[in-house]
Amino acid sequence: MLTDFIDFSFDPMHRWAVDLFPICRSLTGSGNRHTLSYFKNLLPDLQIHEVPSGSKAFDWTVPDEWNIRDAYIETESGERIVDFKNSNLHVLGYSHPVDLWLDLAELDQHLYSLPELPNAIPYIVSYYEKRWGFCLSHSQRMALKPDRYHVVIDSSLAPGHMTFGELLLPGEEREEILLSTYICHPSMANNELSGPVLTTSLARHLMRQPKRRYTYRILFLPETIGAIYYLSRHLAEMQKNVVAGFVLTCAGDEGLFSFLPSRYGTTLADRVARHVLSSLFPTHRTYSFLDRGSDERQYCSPGIDLPVVSIMRSKYGAYPEYHTSLDDLSFVTQRGLEDSFRVLWTCLGTLEANRTYQAVFPCEPQLGKRGLYPTLATRTSGLEMMNLKNILAYADGRNDLLSIAQMTDQDFAQCHALAQLLLKNNLLKEAD
Amino acid sequence: MLTDFIDFSFDPMHRWAVDLFPICRSLTGSGNRHTLSYFKNLLPDLQIHEVPSGSKAFDWTVPDEWNIRDAYIETESGERIVDFKNSNLHVLGYSHPVDLWLDLAELDQHLYSLPELPNAIPYIVSYYEKRWGFCLSHSQRMALKPDRYHVVIDSSLAPGHMTFGELLLPGEEREEILLSTYICHPSMANNELSGPVLTTSLARHLMRQPKRRYTYRILFLPETIGAIYYLSRHLAEMQKNVVAGFVLTCAGDEGLFSFLPSRYGTTLADRVARHVLSSLFPTHRTYSFLDRGSDERQYCSPGIDLPVVSIMRSKYGAYPEYHTSLDDLSFVTQRGLEDSFRVLWTCLGTLEANRTYQAVFPCEPQLGKRGLYPTLATRTSGLEMMNLKNILAYADGRNDLLSIAQMTDQDFAQCHALAQLLLKNNLLKEAD
Amino acid sequence: MLTDFIDFSFDPMHRWAVDLFPICRSLTGSGNRHTLSYFKNLLPDLQIHEVPSGSKAFDWTVPDEWNIRDAYIETESGERIVDFKNSNLHVLGYSHPVDLWLDLAELDQHLYSLPELPNAIPYIVSYYEKRWGFCLSHSQRMALKPDRYHVVIDSSLAPGHMTFGELLLPGEEREEILLSTYICHPSMANNELSGPVLTTSLARHLMRQPKRRYTYRILFLPETIGAIYYLSRHLAEMQKNVVAGFVLTCAGDEGLFSFLPSRYGTTLADRVARHVLSSLFPTHRTYSFLDRGSDERQYCSPGIDLPVVSIMRSKYGAYPEYHTSLDDLSFVTQRGLEDSFRVLWTCLGTLEANRTYQAVFPCEPQLGKRGLYPTLATRTSGLEMMNLKNILAYADGRNDLLSIAQMTDQDFAQCHALAQLLLKNNLLKEAD
Repeated sequence: MLTDFIDFSFDPMHRWAVDLFPICRSLTGSGNRHTLSYFKNLLPDLQIHEVPSGSKAFDWTVPDEWNIRDAYIETESGERIVDFKNSNLHVLGYSHPVDLWLDLAELDQHLYSLPELPNAIPYIVSYYEKRWGFCLSHSQRMALKPDRYHVVIDSSLAPGHMTFGELLLPGEEREEILLSTYICHPSMANNELSGPVLTTSLARHLMRQPKRRYTYRILFLPETIGAIYYLSRHLAEMQKNVVAGFVLTCAGDEGLFSFLPSRYGTTLADRVARHVLSSLFPTHRTYSFLDRGSDERQYCSPGIDLPVVSIMRSKYGAYPEYHTSLDDLSFVTQRGLEDSFRVLWTCLGTLEANRTYQAVFPCEPQLGKRGLYPTLATRTSGLEMMNLKNILAYADGRNDLLSIAQMTDQDFAQCHALAQLLLKNNLLKEAD
Repeated sequence: MLTDFIDFSFDPMHRWAVDLFPICRSLTGSGNRHTLSYFKNLLPDLQIHEVPSGSKAFDWTVPDEWNIRDAYIETESGERIVDFKNSNLHVLGYSHPVDLWLDLAELDQHLYSLPELPNAIPYIVSYYEKRWGFCLSHSQRMALKPDRYHVVIDSSLAPGHMTFGELLLPGEEREEILLSTYICHPSMANNELSGPVLTTSLARHLMRQPKRRYTYRILFLPETIGAIYYLSRHLAEMQKNVVAGFVLTCAGDEGLFSFLPSRYGTTLADRVARHVLSSLFPTHRTYSFLDRGSDERQYCSPGIDLPVVSIMRSKYGAYPEYHTSLDDLSFVTQRGLEDSFRVLWTCLGTLEANRTYQAVFPCEPQLGKRGLYPTLATRTSGLEMMNLKNILAYADGRNDLLSIAQMTDQDFAQCHALAQLLLKNNLLKEAD
Repeated sequence: MLTDFIDFSFDPMHRWAVDLFPICRSLTGSGNRHTLSYFKNLLPDLQIHEVPSGSKAFDWTVPDEWNIRDAYIETESGERIVDFKNSNLHVLGYSHPVDLWLDLAELDQHLYSLPELPNAIPYIVSYYEKRWGFCLSHSQRMALKPDRYHVVIDSSLAPGHMTFGELLLPGEEREEILLSTYICHPSMANNELSGPVLTTSLARHLMRQPKRRYTYRILFLPETIGAIYYLSRHLAEMQKNVVAGFVLTCAGDEGLFSFLPSRYGTTLADRVARHVLSSLFPTHRTYSFLDRGSDERQYCSPGIDLPVVSIMRSKYGAYPEYHTSLDDLSFVTQRGLEDSFRVLWTCLGTLEANRTYQAVFPCEPQLGKRGLYPTLATRTSGLEMMNLKNILAYADGRNDLLSIAQMTDQDFAQCHALAQLLLKNNLLKEAD
C-alpha cells in the first residue's frame, strides 16, 4: 500500500470543485443534499443521513433547516444592484426571509463589507441568532446613494433536517482511521471545496485497494454542529477504534503545507504527519494547537480525546482570501490538490505499513549468508548496510517502524522496504 | 483575592524599616525582642516564642543568648575612635566581653575591614566560636597610628533564650502557605530589614481578607538556627500541609528581581513564582539552587523537602553593598518594597485562585447561546474568544489553571477571570 | 582507587605493539595464538580458549581455521613483485590456497587497491565466502604490465579452532565491569593493536590493586564472531552482573577523543564516559549509536542489552589511514596510548568510587563544630564551602555521586573527596 506515485492516476479534483462551486451550501438545506448526491455518484457506498432539527448533541441543538431561492437589493428605479444569483456569498448565511423598502441608513444596518479588502465579498453567517443581511464589496457599499431600496430574501428557516455523509470502508482490523471534512461553505474553493474533493479522491483510491489493514471512517459533515452531532452518537466506538485521524480542509492552493497538531501533539497521527511532511515537503509550517480552528476543535477536546490532526496548505485565517469571494477556483489548483493527495496518501500508507517488530536473534544476524551483505569486507562496505543494521538495532519491541525511521534518519518508505527484506529473511518478527 | 492594585493601599514599609534600623539584632538577645514587639504592634496575633539556650535541633544546639550595651576603642588620649553607638556593625557579632589595653599590632588581630570597599564597615559574626573583634572601614583602619588602645566590649554571652515570632492565619483549608523571613541582622536595610517589613505587610493584608482559602504560617526567625529549630519541632505537620512557601529577604532595593528555585525547581512554588515574575517583570534573573544562601537551604534540604523558593530583588552576595554598612536605608526604598509586595501578593493570589478544572461537556460548548460568543461568525470573531476556548481545551483534569495559563500564553489573572466566567456558566467544574 | 597520575608508572604499551605488529592475525589461526601467548606473559591468569570450527552461536557458525605460511606474485621472469613477507596485508584475509599462472587481465580480477590512497595497501578480508586475492597499492597496480604472473598462496582453510583470551579478576562484589577488545587484525596499529595493548595495561594495573570493588571480565576476542560466540555462552550471567562495559579500540593515535554511546545513551557506562571525557578532554567528539562499528554492535543489540560504550581516539572509519598499511606504528604513539589509559582508568576509578548516599541529618548539619566550616561568617565564607553543601543538598538517595558531580558542576574526583570527608564526619551514609 505504500504507493509509488509514478503512473499514479489522479482524480480530476479541480473539475469536481468547478462543478460544485455554484451550489449554496450551509449547515443545512438542499445545497448540502445536492453536494452529497454529487459525491455519491463518485462514491456509491456513501451513506447520506438526515438529522431532524432540534436533535440534541452534547451542549448543542441541531438548528432549523435553511433554504434560499433568491435574494436581491433593488433601487427605487428597479436596478438590481446586489443579486444572490451572481454570488451566493451576497446573503448573510441563515438570513430569515424579508421583503422591505428601506432608506440607505436603514439598509446599511444590514450590510457587511471588508474595508481592508474593498473588492471582496465577505462570507458571513448567523446560524444561532435570527438576522438578515447582505454582504458586498466595500467599494460597492461606499458607492451606494441615498435612495429607497427594495430588499428581498426569499428564504425559509423552519424545522427540517441537517444532512451529512458517512462512508465506512471495512479493513482487516477493527481499528480505524478517520477522515473528516466539511460541506457547509457556499461558493468558496479552498475553504471549503478543496477538503471534500480531496477526501472523495482519497476514498476512491482506498476503495480500490485489494486489501486494507485499517477500517476507514470517512465523514462529510457540516462544520462544528455536524462533528459534534456525529461524535455524540458514535463516541464510544470511535474512542475504542480510531488510531489516527485527519481533518481535511484548505488543501487546494499552492502555498506551504501547514501542520496543526493534536492537543498534546504526541499521538500516532502527529508522528506520522510530522514524518511525512518532513520527508516530502521539508519546508512547511508547524502551528500550535492554540491555532486550531476546524473540527479538530471537537475531535481533540477533553472527553473526546481522539488522535486527530490537520494537514493543510495555507491555513484557514492565515491567507487574505480566506472567507471571501477571493477564495475562488483560481486560488485552488489541480496541482495543489494533487500535492495534498500525495501527502495524505503517504500518511495513510505509512499508517497501514507501520508495525512494531523485534529482532529474531540476539546480536546481529549473519547477513552475508543470506545474501544481504557484501561478503567482501572492505573499508566501506560496513557503512553500506548500516540502514539495515540500524533497523535491527532498534527493533527491540519498544519502537514502531515509524519511530525507527525517525531514530535512524531514514524515510519511512525506505525503512519499510528494508524491514520487509528482514521479515522475508526471518530476521524480524512482529513484537509480542 | 486576585488583587487589583489600583487604589491599593500600601503599608509604610520603609517607615517601619527606619524605626527598626538602629536596633542591634543577632541570633538572640533583647534587640530581637524589641524588633518582634514592634511587629506585634502591627500584627496583634503574632506569637513570640522563647527557646532556651542549649535546646537541640537536629544537628544543632541553640547557642547562648548575646546582649550588648556598649563597645568602643579609645586612644591613649581618650579619643573614642570606634563606637558601637555610631554603628552596631562596629562590633563582631557575638563578641564576648573585653576591657583591655593593647598596642596597635595586638589590636589589629581583632580588626576586620574590606580593602575592596574602603569606606564600608563590614558585617561579621562568630556565633559558634568564642571571639571578640571590631569591624571598621578600611580607610579608618589604615589611618590608625601606633598607640596604646583601650578596647571595651560591654556584652554578655550566657544561657538565656532565642526569640522568634510565629503567626498562624487559619484558612478554609488545612493546606498551608509558608512565609519565612529572618530578624537576626543588625543595622542593614536590604539584608535584612526588607524581609521582615515586607512579610509584616503581607500578613496585615492577609489578615484583612474576608476569607482565605489557605492557612498561612508566617515566621520571623533568626536565620539558619531559627529555621532549623522551627523545622525540628514542626516538620511532620509542615510536610503534610505546606503546598508552597517563600523565603522573604533582599526585597527592598530597586534592582532586577531574582528568582531562586527549589532543589529540583518543579514545585508549585516554583511554577507560580516563574509565572508571576514573567508576567509582571519579564526581565528578571533566574538563579540555580546552587546559588542558594538563605533559609531555603533548610526548607529544601533532603529529609525536609518542602516546596519553598525565594523571590528577591538584588540577591544576597550579588550586590556590592551586601553585608556592609552601605546596605542602608537609602539602598532600600518604599517603591522597591512595594514592587516586591506586588510580586508576592500576586503569587499568593495566584495560589489562592489556582484550581484544577475540567470541562463539563465533551466537544466545545455552544458559547453563543450563553452570550459568550459573537453570534455573527465573521472572518475574525473565531479568534476573539480563543482564550476562552483554549481554557476549555486544556481543562481535562490534568492541568491546573496555572499550567493552563502557561500553556495558552495567558496571564494567570486573565485566565482566572475567564475560568470564573466559564464556571458561572456551568461550562467548567472542579476536577474529580 | 581514584588514581593520582603523578608518579604513575605507565606500561610500555607502544613497545608491546612493536613486538606484535608483524604477526598475521585473523579470525582464527596461529597468529592469534602467538598474540595471546604474548599477552599471557604479561597477564599470567589469562585463560586461552579454543572453540572448534562449526560451533554454533546464535545466527552464526564459527568458521574454519585459516593459516598462512607464504604468498606472492611473481612475473614470468621470476621477479617477486608482491610478497606476503613484506606485509601480511598483501593477502586477502581468509584466501584459500592457489598456485596459478595468469595473464594480467585474469590476475586483475583478484587484486584490490585504493585509488584515493594510491600508496596504501588496503586491508580486505572474505571470511564467509571462499575467495583468494592480493591487496596492493594502487600505484603498484597501475604499473603492472601485460605479462604472465605466477600467483601462490600457501594457506590452509580447514576445520580447527577459533582462539580467544579471557581474564576474570574477582572483586568484592559480584557485579562486573566488562572490558572487551579484539585481536583479529594483521599488521595495523591503531585498529587494532592499540586496543589489546591498552586492555592489557589496564588489566595489569587492576591486578595490582589491593582491592577491587567490582569483578572485571576482560576479553580478547576476534571481532564480531568472537563477541557473538562469547555472548552466546555467557549471556545470562553477563546480563545479571555487568554494570558497565567498554569496547577498547582505536586507542593509540593522538587525535581527538571520540565517544560512542550505547543504544539509548543513558546507561551508567554512558554517564561515566561523558563525565570523564568532559573533565579530562573537554574538546572531544560525541558520535551517535548509528555510527557504531565494533563489538558494541553486539553488546548493545536487542536481546543482549548490555550497558556498553566505546571511548576511542580517532574513530574507525573516520581517519584516512583506517584499514590500510598507513595505520602503522608511527600513527600510534606511547603518548596517545597513555592518554587513553588515563581516560579509561579514570572511568574505572569513577565506577569503583561511585555510590549513592543520603544525608544523615534533615537540614544542613553544623559544619563548624566539626571543623569543616570557617567559624567566622564573613561576606565570602558562605561560598567557600558551597561544594560541600551542594553534595549534602542533593544526597537524597535519588542521585549517585556521579549525578551529583554533574548537577553541582564538580569534577567527580573532587566531589568524591568531599563525600569521603562527609562520610568520615558521619554526615553522609549509603542510601538504603
